[in-house]
Amino acid sequence: MTSHRIHPFDDALALTPGAPDHFSGRTTPGYWNMVGPYGGITAATLLQAVLRHPLLLGEPLSLTVNFAAAVGEGPFTLQATPVRTNRSTQHWLVMAEQVDASGAQVVTTTATVVTAARRETWSAADTPMPAVPVPAQCQPVRLAFRSEWLHRYEMRPVTGALPTQWDDSGHTSLTQLWLRDAPARQLDFPALASMCDVFFPRVWLRRARRVPAGTVSITVYFHAGSALLAQTGSGYLLGQARAQEFRNGFFDQSAQLWNEAGQLLATSHQIVYYKE
Amino acid sequence: MTSHRIHPFDDALALTPGAPDHFSGRTTPGYWNMVGPYGGITAATLLQAVLRHPLLLGEPLSLTVNFAAAVGEGPFTLQATPVRTNRSTQHWLVMAEQVDASGAQVVTTTATVVTAARRETWSAADTPMPAVPVPAQCQPVRLAFRSEWLHRYEMRPVTGALPTQWDDSGHTSLTQLWLRDAPARQLDFPALASMCDVFFPRVWLRRARRVPAGTVSITVYFHAGSALLAQTGSGYLLGQARAQEFRNGFFDQSAQLWNEAGQLLATSHQIVYYKE
Repeated sequence: MTSHRIHPFDDALALTPGAPDHFSGRTTPGYWNMVGPYGGITAATLLQAVLRHPLLLGEPLSLTVNFAAAVGEGPFTLQATPVRTNRSTQHWLVMAEQVDASGAQVVTTTATVVTAARRETWSAADTPMPAVPVPAQCQPVRLAFRSEWLHRYEMRPVTGALPTQWDDSGHTSLTQLWLRDAPARQLDFPALASMCDVFFPRVWLRRARRVPAGTVSITVYFHAGSALLAQTGSGYLLGQARAQEFRNGFFDQSAQLWNEAGQLLATSHQIVYYKE
Repeated sequence: MTSHRIHPFDDALALTPGAPDHFSGRTTPGYWNMVGPYGGITAATLLQAVLRHPLLLGEPLSLTVNFAAAVGEGPFTLQATPVRTNRSTQHWLVMAEQVDASGAQVVTTTATVVTAARRETWSAADTPMPAVPVPAQCQPVRLAFRSEWLHRYEMRPVTGALPTQWDDSGHTSLTQLWLRDAPARQLDFPALASMCDVFFPRVWLRRARRVPAGTVSITVYFHAGSALLAQTGSGYLLGQARAQEFRNGFFDQSAQLWNEAGQLLATSHQIVYYKE
């Protein structure tokens, strides 16, 4: 029998239950970005508080996470409250707080989550996966930054990779890439939520210029249930992201994630701050 | 001097301040849907609580509204809390409550709002308005239902109007329509938010079958500031909506709203319950 080290994703999502509705966690170096944790891991952690809650009904349907402030290195507390439970849907509020430098308890992140008991109905997949080369035919990305979290994903760009020349020559905001956890890991809802935030800021690609940028709010709609996630396993997902509008300091991003079989697992949207 | 009656939209959004962070309001017949108010007016009302708050900073950037339960006819209370105020963004939680039949105070709706002080930056409009006939060339919709709120919008479909034959013959979920308030009214943020929810359920169009359906969660990203809204005035907006995926009881909808000059004012997404 071999011993297994905990996967960095599970390590980051480790929460300790406290008072009713409360959990405590802490940031981990594995998903560190430049001035705080990678946004996707924060989103996944807030979702995890709901999934760990004893009153949970159903599976994640929608998740909105608002990044109110940078999360600092160290401990944080989560409060996940089921504010309304219906027959087949449940509505949650989640708040993340940290003690700031002055010793005050402050809100760093807020979220709303809807969970639902889903059942088989008429269904239609109206967003076919784009025709792209298979993962093995796409080269793994060469990391241009030292942010630790980038090592937690294997990314194989199809189109719209990070520019290599920052010369204001950009003209599109479209990225398509294959991705999966590194090391590989069975897909679950928090991992899928985290992957929705994996795309570098669209404004960098659109302008071929690096400017300060950060997600303000992200929403994820889960189209897959747990059976489809299990079936997807640790395979690659194709992620696609583009912006619709850049105006006066904020742009939006729409994203889709399919599994290798071409099934749409999640759609996601975010609004992102940028400078200049 | 003539006297002016209050516009039904302003009537619906009338709030009375109470304790700090609290407002009281009531449903109005003008925006009544089948079993509660039109979802767009509920979204607009929750946003209005933020806009009326004495601590408000900046203008709306993003809004997510979760419809936890049908709002009943009568009074409701709103609590709008600025949970985090930064230099140029502010994060809000909004909760709507009503007294239910058993006399208990229950949550009907939750929302998160981000407001922001915007400034001029490099900008790019990457989603051109589709080439469509001007409003005067499009026939006003003939109302097939008696929901009162439908009379509050002048809608002139370009494509994807409500099916006239419910014969399971649908094959697309795309609607494009010109719309404005009826009677006409100067555009503002709550009105724009409300208009993002104006599209009938995509599943009706996609299937050409009417099944029970209702929005679970909607997100609006505001790309326009108040100056652009003022410039748009009471003109028509072109609304476009389509679904990406219908699966196991829920579908998503992505929408865009442009003014007649072709400027993208808002993008919006929602996840919608459907039966069968």
